[in-house]
Amino acid sequence: MEQKQRKPVYYSEYLQLDKILNAQDPESTKEGIRADDEMLFIIIHQTYELWFKEILHELGIIRDVFKQPVIADSSPDIYNCVHRIKRVCAILNVAVQQMAVLETMTPLDFLDFRDLLRPASGFQSIQFKTIEATLGLHYEKRYGKSYYLSQLTEADIQRVKDAEKEPTLLVLVNNWLSRMPFANQSYWQMGAYDSFWQQYRDLYSSSLLDAEQANLSSFDKLFIDRSAYPEGRGFSPEASRNALFIMLFRDYPLFHLPYELLSSLLEIDEMLSLWRQRHINMVQRTIGKRVGTGGSTGAEYLRGAADSHYIFKEVAELTSFLLPRHLLPKLPDPLVRDLSYNR
Amino acid sequence: MEQKQRKPVYYSEYLQLDKILNAQDPESTKEGIRADDEMLFIIIHQTYELWFKEILHELGIIRDVFKQPVIADSSPDIYNCVHRIKRVCAILNVAVQQMAVLETMTPLDFLDFRDLLRPASGFQSIQFKTIEATLGLHYEKRYGKSYYLSQLTEADIQRVKDAEKEPTLLVLVNNWLSRMPFANQSYWQMGAYDSFWQQYRDLYSSSLLDAEQANLSSFDKLFIDRSAYPEGRGFSPEASRNALFIMLFRDYPLFHLPYELLSSLLEIDEMLSLWRQRHINMVQRTIGKRVGTGGSTGAEYLRGAADSHYIFKEVAELTSFLLPRHLLPKLPDPLVRDLSYNR
Amino acid sequence: MEQKQRKPVYYSEYLQLDKILNAQDPESTKEGIRADDEMLFIIIHQTYELWFKEILHELGIIRDVFKQPVIADSSPDIYNCVHRIKRVCAILNVAVQQMAVLETMTPLDFLDFRDLLRPASGFQSIQFKTIEATLGLHYEKRYGKSYYLSQLTEADIQRVKDAEKEPTLLVLVNNWLSRMPFANQSYWQMGAYDSFWQQYRDLYSSSLLDAEQANLSSFDKLFIDRSAYPEGRGFSPEASRNALFIMLFRDYPLFHLPYELLSSLLEIDEMLSLWRQRHINMVQRTIGKRVGTGGSTGAEYLRGAADSHYIFKEVAELTSFLLPRHLLPKLPDPLVRDLSYNR
Amino acid sequence: MEQKQRKPVYYSEYLQLDKILNAQDPESTKEGIRADDEMLFIIIHQTYELWFKEILHELGIIRDVFKQPVIADSSPDIYNCVHRIKRVCAILNVAVQQMAVLETMTPLDFLDFRDLLRPASGFQSIQFKTIEATLGLHYEKRYGKSYYLSQLTEADIQRVKDAEKEPTLLVLVNNWLSRMPFANQSYWQMGAYDSFWQQYRDLYSSSLLDAEQANLSSFDKLFIDRSAYPEGRGFSPEASRNALFIMLFRDYPLFHLPYELLSSLLEIDEMLSLWRQRHINMVQRTIGKRVGTGGSTGAEYLRGAADSHYIFKEVAELTSFLLPRHLLPKLPDPLVRDLSYNR
Repeated sequence: MEQKQRKPVYYSEYLQLDKILNAQDPESTKEGIRADDEMLFIIIHQTYELWFKEILHELGIIRDVFKQPVIADSSPDIYNCVHRIKRVCAILNVAVQQMAVLETMTPLDFLDFRDLLRPASGFQSIQFKTIEATLGLHYEKRYGKSYYLSQLTEADIQRVKDAEKEPTLLVLVNNWLSRMPFANQSYWQMGAYDSFWQQYRDLYSSSLLDAEQANLSSFDKLFIDRSAYPEGRGFSPEASRNALFIMLFRDYPLFHLPYELLSSLLEIDEMLSLWRQRHINMVQRTIGKRVGTGGSTGAEYLRGAADSHYIFKEVAELTSFLLPRHLLPKLPDPLVRDLSYNR
Repeated sequence: MEQKQRKPVYYSEYLQLDKILNAQDPESTKEGIRADDEMLFIIIHQTYELWFKEILHELGIIRDVFKQPVIADSSPDIYNCVHRIKRVCAILNVAVQQMAVLETMTPLDFLDFRDLLRPASGFQSIQFKTIEATLGLHYEKRYGKSYYLSQLTEADIQRVKDAEKEPTLLVLVNNWLSRMPFANQSYWQMGAYDSFWQQYRDLYSSSLLDAEQANLSSFDKLFIDRSAYPEGRGFSPEASRNALFIMLFRDYPLFHLPYELLSSLLEIDEMLSLWRQRHINMVQRTIGKRVGTGGSTGAEYLRGAADSHYIFKEVAELTSFLLPRHLLPKLPDPLVRDLSYNR
Repeated sequence: MEQKQRKPVYYSEYLQLDKILNAQDPESTKEGIRADDEMLFIIIHQTYELWFKEILHELGIIRDVFKQPVIADSSPDIYNCVHRIKRVCAILNVAVQQMAVLETMTPLDFLDFRDLLRPASGFQSIQFKTIEATLGLHYEKRYGKSYYLSQLTEADIQRVKDAEKEPTLLVLVNNWLSRMPFANQSYWQMGAYDSFWQQYRDLYSSSLLDAEQANLSSFDKLFIDRSAYPEGRGFSPEASRNALFIMLFRDYPLFHLPYELLSSLLEIDEMLSLWRQRHINMVQRTIGKRVGTGGSTGAEYLRGAADSHYIFKEVAELTSFLLPRHLLPKLPDPLVRDLSYNR
Repeated sequence: MEQKQRKPVYYSEYLQLDKILNAQDPESTKEGIRADDEMLFIIIHQTYELWFKEILHELGIIRDVFKQPVIADSSPDIYNCVHRIKRVCAILNVAVQQMAVLETMTPLDFLDFRDLLRPASGFQSIQFKTIEATLGLHYEKRYGKSYYLSQLTEADIQRVKDAEKEPTLLVLVNNWLSRMPFANQSYWQMGAYDSFWQQYRDLYSSSLLDAEQANLSSFDKLFIDRSAYPEGRGFSPEASRNALFIMLFRDYPLFHLPYELLSSLLEIDEMLSLWRQRHINMVQRTIGKRVGTGGSTGAEYLRGAADSHYIFKEVAELTSFLLPRHLLPKLPDPLVRDLSYNR
């Protein structure tokens, strides 16, 4: 086998443990104060940063796929992306679970070294902000913008801004969805309706309870009356339509993976929201209403972010416009054929 | 052994599986509609109700302990209660984790039977409302009070009201804390300060950053100026003081368990908050903005409850008033003695 | 909407909570002994049985799909099955997690009522044995067969035997795999090799380290020399070949779902193995080496079952015969076409 | 506040992210091979090593406490140790959970870079071996000793040997237990029995089922007949007796924490065992029966270690000798007094 000529790999060198395990210098040690829990504090944050690096690695691969002008149906590209987004969710799940380790640090133990850390704070994690930016969170939509600027060095602000210049995953997914032809008129000219959406509107309308009638006008704005399409959305009218179309007809082979993709993007939002919620609980228990080491008023920023940083909420909202399978319009035969396997 | 005369116990009879496993009658089956996921929907709710019954069982035991006029220091009572509260947290943790099972039900699959369930909703879980009431949530502090009444039968409203008449765990813990003598003047007459709280106020004041000075006036209202003690609190001034005292001096033997007790009560709030957050995510993904089966506007009620139903938040807030160990006043010798083991 | 005429559904009636919540009669209560933890013991076992019912419900749906003589490629059947097997795994994950609740019961607390339960034991769960049988565990392969018979009533033995008469999931998956034509000679007649397997054998052989040469003879027995195919396997030679073929070429559209299916079957085995391991730990801590309530010698049976009850191990073993993607033979064009989407 | 003069701390410098985030150099990149999953492989191992460092940090603090010739009853020492052991368990729980992330790497994806890593293997983690040694695993009791030596550099073998020279936690806990006076004759001279153990033996004997009679001779060897005490045990006869005594009378204040300590040590063993089990599953799925990168035959070593590396099994086995509370002998008044709080 060809590998035999390579220099043998040794575990500790491969993992560069000389760097990894010599990167913990507690401030309390420098000050000659005993604070046994500062080591935990440093190490757990370092594991978070390692996971953030891995998440950015995965998001980079995913974005490279979606940057292609066309993604060939039968390539493994979407399959690969779904797999990687699910991995990101698995990592975020660990990030949530390991908060339980930090919760073993009591408020009194944190106070032993807390003042030594000022003004550093987890808020200064550039990798986390880059993850948010890469997914699709624009600076203008960030909660607490000025606070944000005041806490970071110029170089770090620039790093996040650079990340924001790249097309976000939200934009790339929008472009991919916008290109899909399946709900187009060409497939639907043969029936009583001249478009799928007219037909679906009738069915949807008759399914609504009295208390839900307001949903119909939302439906019209999103799917029928292009001039009324709300401004400032991440998704184009075509992308919104195609995303809903995929959710409705996910049982056809060609839609399996696009549906899994949309679902896994929602799962990222949910995991980030759980992470923030658990973070809030931990901060509340550990520092109460006192000012955080970074100067923020404790849990307040986190709650603001938790409520406003959903990135794929336009996908989540489509759920309101679903109909049960037995009410769905029958797909035209040429479309069924195009959504199937060759064999 | 004396047990030998008893009728042999058989697993399925002991667990009354004839009842447990014959209590699933999907509405879709009655209607002749195929909806394969309704069984999951029924069963997961039944497991929740079983766990709620167990939680109420544990809370009942805990309340019986705290209903005693005096809890003897050397009895196993507080030890037992801490153990049981941690068990409740372990159960709530499972309740959170198992939401992942319900999340395997997609919106489209739910639509297969969703309309058949109206107007039933998880909101009608009397056991869950009884848990909240038993812990200490009063009707007046419930989010969405009128909605609450409109959804339940008279009999069920009465059941929750009956639970509210019993002394809540919050009240019982308050009473227990209020009785504690350790921070009393009798122990503290010998020094420059004639009370612990005057001395502590000076230390606390000098520890505050400029941005935190507002905390001092909160401190005074809670711990110094009895006439300014805020109205409507669950904790008496004595209980607040003693809870903080326990948090500061938890390293003394007699305070180990009271500290664990307070921490575990906070953990209940945190687990309930995580449960609500995960519930919100699940509802948003499954029914979007459509009206829930119970008529509520989906995630809105849950979010209101999540933000306002913290029961032990007065304990959580005490964290703001802690000082690091090396700044704490030295305890008088007689008090140290009274907080120690005999031996 | 048509549903409006239906009788309104009420939560507690829908879930039949009168049955579910009135099925707990502790033996200790009957004997007038205080044993506060018996309620937990009953309830956690009841939740397990509810989950087992749901698992059997899902397995029933999955088997119905695989009982079809042909599964149309473009039907949602395999997609549906993968989804349901993943749900079973999610349920088993909860089953593992909730062991943590039972672990809050200390040995001394269990002793308060343990003797009252004899000879009942979790071993008598017919639903669990039916799950094993449905997946593919034959009576002859069960660990501790005679013990097994001695613990159950005639009626319950019959129930498991009836379940064993049905085609198991293992058999059904084998049949489905055996029918697949993709690795057949017809696709491979054009090259230097007259079969895929001859070509693959050469590549595999040259990839093996010296220490791994024994793998080649295993390879030959499974994939080359039909007369040497080991007896007593669950998979036919064709099924083994096609399963490996799917694992190698999972990046082609038609193989995405079959690959996910095989992976999710392995995950069931892994979750069952984790469940048994955690069960062993719990039993060891709670009853040590004493005889269990069912008369078994504690953890011994569980360990035997844990080591021998892997149902899909023939799938797991295929991993030994994989090659890295860059060494894989190129697929013939007609095959690539047959593995792709239509469009 | 005094801290104001310190140089402001910045998050990325505090965590030394320049080291942490620049310690990933995939072998595949060096070889110009695309293997997108090698980054995950490196990073997850680095997070494990960070957690191992934290565990060693905690074990060091715990051992320093137990190295004291006497641990004062009313010091916070045992309280502190229990807290830290529970933290170690929380970390091990994350270590188990995060295996799920590695399980997202499929066998085929691992093959892309697996051969490049030879002969490195997780077996070469010196920190993990040091954790085992620190807890109490002696070289002679290690599974696969010669294999062990063949895989490590001389320097690394020396590091583990040095760790083995220090008194292990098992030894230190044994010493602490051995010193306890509570089950001594001096307390028990007043009754019909001249020792607690004679009285307990009678009660225990009459509680045994016929099938359990062999337990009595085990009991005698451990607790009655000192000359028959089995050789090679980690615990002295006194330590065994006192550990059982603590388990029986844990409801008395002075025994609360020793009982928690013993329980949490068992939990470490359980978490390590779960970690190994999950590791086995992962290895089986990822490399099957092929030789691992370190040359070991895959899961075999792990299974051997899983079965034989229980460190506190002598504590676990005591469960066999417990009696229910209502059968326990009444403690003499002077002992009750010595086990109580002062107040």
